[in-house]
Order: sequence, then C-alpha cells, then structure tokens
Amino acid sequence: MAQVSELLRVGSGVDLASIDPASTPGLPEGKQVRRDPKGWARAELAQLGTRLAQRQEMLYACAKKDRTEARRVLLVLQAMDCGGKDGTVRRVAGTMNPQGLHIVGFGPPTPKELQHDFLWRVRHALPEAGYVGIFNRSHYEDVLVARVRDLVPPKTWRARYDKINAFEQELVGSGCALVKVMLHISYAEQRRRLLERLRDPTKFWKYNPEDVDNRAYWDAYQRAYGDAIARCGTGHAPWYVVPADRKWYRDWAVAHLVLDALNGLELTYPPPDFDPETEIKRLEGDGSG
Amino acid sequence: MAQVSELLRVGSGVDLASIDPASTPGLPEGKQVRRDPKGWARAELAQLGTRLAQRQEMLYACAKKDRTEARRVLLVLQAMDCGGKDGTVRRVAGTMNPQGLHIVGFGPPTPKELQHDFLWRVRHALPEAGYVGIFNRSHYEDVLVARVRDLVPPKTWRARYDKINAFEQELVGSGCALVKVMLHISYAEQRRRLLERLRDPTKFWKYNPEDVDNRAYWDAYQRAYGDAIARCGTGHAPWYVVPADRKWYRDWAVAHLVLDALNGLELTYPPPDFDPETEIKRLEGDGSG
Repeated sequence: MAQVSELLRVGSGVDLASIDPASTPGLPEGKQVRRDPKGWARAELAQLGTRLAQRQEMLYACAKKDRTEARRVLLVLQAMDCGGKDGTVRRVAGTMNPQGLHIVGFGPPTPKELQHDFLWRVRHALPEAGYVGIFNRSHYEDVLVARVRDLVPPKTWRARYDKINAFEQELVGSGCALVKVMLHISYAEQRRRLLERLRDPTKFWKYNPEDVDNRAYWDAYQRAYGDAIARCGTGHAPWYVVPADRKWYRDWAVAHLVLDALNGLELTYPPPDFDPETEIKRLEGDGSG
Repeated sequence: MAQVSELLRVGSGVDLASIDPASTPGLPEGKQVRRDPKGWARAELAQLGTRLAQRQEMLYACAKKDRTEARRVLLVLQAMDCGGKDGTVRRVAGTMNPQGLHIVGFGPPTPKELQHDFLWRVRHALPEAGYVGIFNRSHYEDVLVARVRDLVPPKTWRARYDKINAFEQELVGSGCALVKVMLHISYAEQRRRLLERLRDPTKFWKYNPEDVDNRAYWDAYQRAYGDAIARCGTGHAPWYVVPADRKWYRDWAVAHLVLDALNGLELTYPPPDFDPETEIKRLEGDGSG
C-alpha cells in the first residue's frame, strides 16, 4: 500500500522526462499479474473501492456527529489534455458514495472570477468536513496554462507558487488531507486518444480542436508542470506523478493514493451520543404498529 | 419499463394507507424472480445502472457542447425517518458518474435561510443543465415537518402548496425533468431499522433519539404526506409512491423511474462542431513524438 505512494511521490528534483508514462511502479510481481495485469488491476480496484467507500463513510459519520470535526480529503487532478482526469473520477470516485463526494471542475475563469485573486474560486470550492473533494483541474492551471499561453505577465505567475504553498499549508493545517496527482501521459498516447475521439461519434463531444493546437506547446507545458511540481511539492502537500498511459494502472494507483490519505486520518466510527440500551428499551416498549 | 412508473404514479386521490409498503408492483412474474427476487432485482439494478450511466453521459455531453441546452433531471426523495433516502442515493446514484451528479441534502433551515422565502435555498440547489440532481429531502419538508411540528402558522404552510406547484411548473417548463418519490415504509419497518442502528456500532452515527420521539407523530406525518402528494401531484410533476420496506425493490423501482425520466428527454450524442476528417488529417500529419 504505502509502497505505491512512496514510489510515486516526487520532490523538488523531479524530472518528468525521466518518468516513463507507460510504466507501472508498485505493481506486484507474480504470475497472475503478469498474465493479465489489466484484469488483475480492475479486480483490485473493486477491492480498493470497497475500502475507500468504508473509510469515506467513517469520515462522513465523524463530521455528522461532531460539529468540531474538520477532517476531509481533497484529491487534486492535473493532466495534459486526454490525460484521463474524467476517467479517473468516474472509475475511482465511482467506487465511493456519491453523497459524500464534492467534485468540482475548473474551466477558464469567468469574468467574475477574474475580478478576484486566483485562489478565490478555489477557496469557494473546497470540500466541507466529512467529504472527499475532487478538483478536476485546479489552482495549478494558474501556473500552467496561464504561464504557457501568456495569460498573465511572468511576474504574476511567478508570484503564485509561494501563494499556492501558503494556501495549501493553511488547508492542510485546517484538517484537509491533500493528494495532488499529475496524470502523466506521453505525447504519442495523447495523439492516440485524440484520434480515438475523432473516430467514435459517441466521443465527439469530448474532442476540442484546440487540443491539437495545444500540442505545439507540449514541451512548454511539461516544463511548467515540472516547475509547479518542484516548487509546490512540499512535505505537507507532496505531488504524485502517476504514469497514465495505461488506464488500469492509473486508476489502481490513484485509488491507492486516496486510500492512503484516508488511512492517514486514522478514522473510526464515532461513539454514540446516546445510551443504546435506553433507546432500545424505548423502542421495545413501542408497539410495532 | 413504463409499466413500473405507471403503477407507482399517484394522483389527487392517493390513499397512502391502501398502499402496502412491502408490496412489489411491476416486478415481473417468472420462476427465477420468484425463487430469488432480491438476487434478481440486484442483478437488474446493475443492468439499469449501465443504461442510467449512458443516458447521463448523453445529457452531460449535450450541455457541454451546447450552451443553450437546458435539459437536466431532478430526483426528489422524501421519506419518513429510516425510509431509505441515503441508501437509495448510494445504490441508484452510485451506478452513475459522480461527476455528472448534483446531490443536495436539506436539513433544518439555517438562520440565514429562514430570512428568505422557503423556496430560496431550493432554487440555489437546482442542478445545472446536463446534470442529474438529487434532493435528499426537499421543499416538501416545508409542508411536512413544518406542518406536523407547528414550525409555522397553518396559513403559512397552507399557502405553500400553490407556491410549490407554481415553482415546479416553472422548473419543468425550463427543461428540468422532475421525478418526485416518496419512499413508503411501514411503522413496523421503521422500528426494525431503528433497532438495527442501535445494535450495530457502525450504525450509531445514523441514529437520532428524536427519530423515536417523532414516531408519536406518525399518523400526522402520513396525513401531511397524503395532502402534499394529493395537492402537488400534477400532470407535469407527478408523485410516485415507492413501497420501500424491501430495499431491493425500492432501488430497482427508483432506478426505473429515473431511467424513464432520462428516456423521456430523447437524448442523443451531440453532433460534432468540427469536421472529423480534417481533424484526423491534422493529427496524422503530427509526429507521434
């Protein structure tokens, strides 16, 4: 368990180019896994999902019973176009109780959002206590697309790394376990997935011609990702780079990361704030209608 | 399919006492179903879930590609305590993509909410175009608990039925398919479920001693439900009463109702707003890195 997150955690010395997007760090050895790694990982994901859902219920229960409870989890998903953010949400979050999830997608900022600091909309989107939040894109766009496509002057985006670190430190300090994941795909895999969307009419809606234009900026994006991860991969809020060319590995790995975060909260079901025996007696004295 | 919703739809002449909470309207005949109705219904729910998820994706895709698209679905869940609202959300919504769900639970109104009209918080919680919304409790609490527990004067709650009808007519007219469901359990089944919560430490958090106090008001609640359903079960926004003593029937039936609502929208995947052949050529000319 812990091994997967240790293998995927990256620090200030990260070199994205050295991480193979088709690799599968932490995948156990063994005949069964070698014979059908995808089948194995899908079955394992279902098992992990059961544990995720159980921990999620404990988290929810704690917040429901105790108003001072502050614990929650936030999964931040970043990736190049076609990197698999939506698929990860569907597959990993899909194992949990939708009622305890708070999923927010971030698009280009609206005129109203642009009138505020870049973290304003992010603060409004944070999960409440007891919830597992997921950001599909996040405040990191403000040091990625904003930098690569010159949406703001360099001095503006350069100042944002420190602001992000301060924000995340505050967030973690307030009881939010933060799991920051970059889904790492290759240039060739992106092309393959774009072609797939163009050849399947049920996937046209996912296709955006700008995604092809954006491929011209691939290297600049990789540099921007590298810098964001290096500068904001901190002890309290590390970054994980998940090789994501293989979807089954990606989902399996992200499920591990979220489960580790939930396990780190050392959750238990809350004790009763009533006397069960007294209550049972009240009900037993009550005709069953 | 359509048969289940027709069997469960109720009108102004509804008599809750005449509906058996343990019944299973619309469950098909046949040896396999008779031998293991629960097993059959759970397997069917998985099948229904696949179709729910597919229709949900179409709905989401339409809204993503067309800003004038207004279609969405809202499932309103009401029930007595222990009626199974949370379980229904988990089991039925759990088959869909959490990213396309908008689930809102309504508790007692906050001081801020009380400063507004009772529909204010409800309007703020509506699903956006492309989403399947779920209300776990709803504006109907304002003619249920508010009436039974005298939270407002009679003239206030009496005026609310017409306001609800006007609101729902506007909502449906704006493109929202509305599915209003009362999960109908028996007095005896409520007691059984309360005792279950008291005997399982992992369920203590769901137990509230007030639920037992509330049992003294059972008949008044049933009358208030009957009136709400009779007065607000309209042609454009009918009420469905789902017998809910059997959880497997409840989930199967609610999945049918939501699927019917999605089918009623006659969804298709949106056409491309680009020329796929041109785009394929652009990508094929693009080295695969």
